[in-house]
Amino acid sequence: MKKLINNPETVVEESLAGLQAAHDNLLKVYFKPTYIARADAPVAGKVAIISGGGSGHEPMHGGFVGRGMLDAACPGAVFTSPTPDQMEAATKAVYGGAGALHIVKNYTGDVMNFEMAAELCAADGLEVSAVIINDDVAVTDSLYTAGRRGMGATIFAEKICGAAAERGYDLQKVTGLCRKVNDHGRSMAMALTSCAVPAAGKPTFDIAEDAMEIGVGIHGEPGRERMPLKPAGEIVEILATAVLDDLPFRSGDRVIAMVNGAGGSPLLELYLVYHELQSICAARNITIARRLVGNYITSLEMQGCSITLMKADDELLELWDDPVLTPALRWGI
Amino acid sequence: MKKLINNPETVVEESLAGLQAAHDNLLKVYFKPTYIARADAPVAGKVAIISGGGSGHEPMHGGFVGRGMLDAACPGAVFTSPTPDQMEAATKAVYGGAGALHIVKNYTGDVMNFEMAAELCAADGLEVSAVIINDDVAVTDSLYTAGRRGMGATIFAEKICGAAAERGYDLQKVTGLCRKVNDHGRSMAMALTSCAVPAAGKPTFDIAEDAMEIGVGIHGEPGRERMPLKPAGEIVEILATAVLDDLPFRSGDRVIAMVNGAGGSPLLELYLVYHELQSICAARNITIARRLVGNYITSLEMQGCSITLMKADDELLELWDDPVLTPALRWGI
Repeated sequence: MKKLINNPETVVEESLAGLQAAHDNLLKVYFKPTYIARADAPVAGKVAIISGGGSGHEPMHGGFVGRGMLDAACPGAVFTSPTPDQMEAATKAVYGGAGALHIVKNYTGDVMNFEMAAELCAADGLEVSAVIINDDVAVTDSLYTAGRRGMGATIFAEKICGAAAERGYDLQKVTGLCRKVNDHGRSMAMALTSCAVPAAGKPTFDIAEDAMEIGVGIHGEPGRERMPLKPAGEIVEILATAVLDDLPFRSGDRVIAMVNGAGGSPLLELYLVYHELQSICAARNITIARRLVGNYITSLEMQGCSITLMKADDELLELWDDPVLTPALRWGI
Repeated sequence: MKKLINNPETVVEESLAGLQAAHDNLLKVYFKPTYIARADAPVAGKVAIISGGGSGHEPMHGGFVGRGMLDAACPGAVFTSPTPDQMEAATKAVYGGAGALHIVKNYTGDVMNFEMAAELCAADGLEVSAVIINDDVAVTDSLYTAGRRGMGATIFAEKICGAAAERGYDLQKVTGLCRKVNDHGRSMAMALTSCAVPAAGKPTFDIAEDAMEIGVGIHGEPGRERMPLKPAGEIVEILATAVLDDLPFRSGDRVIAMVNGAGGSPLLELYLVYHELQSICAARNITIARRLVGNYITSLEMQGCSITLMKADDELLELWDDPVLTPALRWGI
């Protein structure tokens, strides 16, 4: 295991210090309990959008804190849920008096801790709603999850809900949009290699030099099938077919697409994957109206990719196009 | 060697097709000869900024084509110089009647081919200047280079010169700014792992599980020293000291900094590296006025990082802050 770190115990804090130093115009990092908040939080009268999860998936979530996206993010230890006190402190710190939405990826620890945090906030008079993101079509029930896992649709939910909140939509409407994103979004991932959690000091799973894991989870959890490595076109066909058939997406649909790198795959390959995805969608008469290609929800240095598609209508596209100013996503400002 | 590709012979073309499909509002990819041009090129009356080099370093250069940065980029085969006919075609296609600047990383093939292209363009009456970027302090003379290699300052030159051209500065002034960036910028890289060129099918170099290469080149060329892996703080100290002492940078200086990932290192680690760099600069009373942290000039899936520092004055900072709208770098628009 080779890493640019000092100590597995301090890697998250030291990385967050770097995030703070690099983006102090956009965000502020707090410690004990640890969370990242918009520099100008709380924004009075705006619904506050909060997410969080284990570290090791950067830029998610801290890289999406800023105007037009998240008000706060709670980073746990690597691949470990943040604690309720982090979520409570973050929610209270960015609460602008118009309610708060917790966007929660469906992992058992995250769900439980966000529920507990919401109760603690409610006891103090805050209005908090929560939406569970469970867009990963690969498997039902998994190493850390009951039901489907949360994956790429999380980014879409953070962008759409962040825009809606910025527009002044109320908590009910923002929460409804989050559910809509989750209902309309589907993802599936694959891995060429494992990642290694710093504290573990060894790869999360073993995989042969000629094999790949289809449907892998963002922590390296098992997917649908271990199979021999195939050409990219066939890999994308497998992922895209699973995603497209699940909703299902239909001829004439417009979608927002993401080709997401797992952290260790070069951009050269991710654009090649996008080319394949675009061809597959075109053959089904599905139009990719907007897209992201890059590393957005990663698994440390894992090589591989995931594909996320969300059926889009005018409402979602307009919110998608709204300005956003965060470390990892910015346009229109 | 595990990669998301179909065929080593077609990887660049298929990836470029994906780049085109993903960003057709910003750029257009041409084949035979292959180059990437701004969607609205040529821009009449503006100095045209052209760069290029081997593929495998994405987002450089194609990801920097767009308003406020490059007018065109010429991608070669992986880690292979583009040909003079690519550079000639690109220069002619984006020539707006106000001259063209070639920004050339100092690798023997790139320099030779850009020279030939400039002569071909000059024979047809185009005014072309060229600046060689050679900011890598690691070694003098290398596997593909006489003199110092070109590295991260290339990105700074593309941004600064792109902004200057957008402002309407003339060719002489834009060329002078490019020289100024190169004179004021210094870089050094390190690698934890090798990359593998698709056509070669095997790692470019072997490196032990407990070793790292200090001063590695962007194609995996040998650096200054192979040494045992150290904590990130010590690694950054080695890189930063080499960079800071070379110009030298002095107490009171303001700099633009880049912590660049080699392609396979997670963002979690790059922010940790930035934290270390920021501390080292602060201890020398050097202020990081602007910064980039992420994958900008990569070596396929190599794990590692490079550090670039450029001494900045008001002129460079203002041009840096000018709007830019490209696939990989965007602000202010």
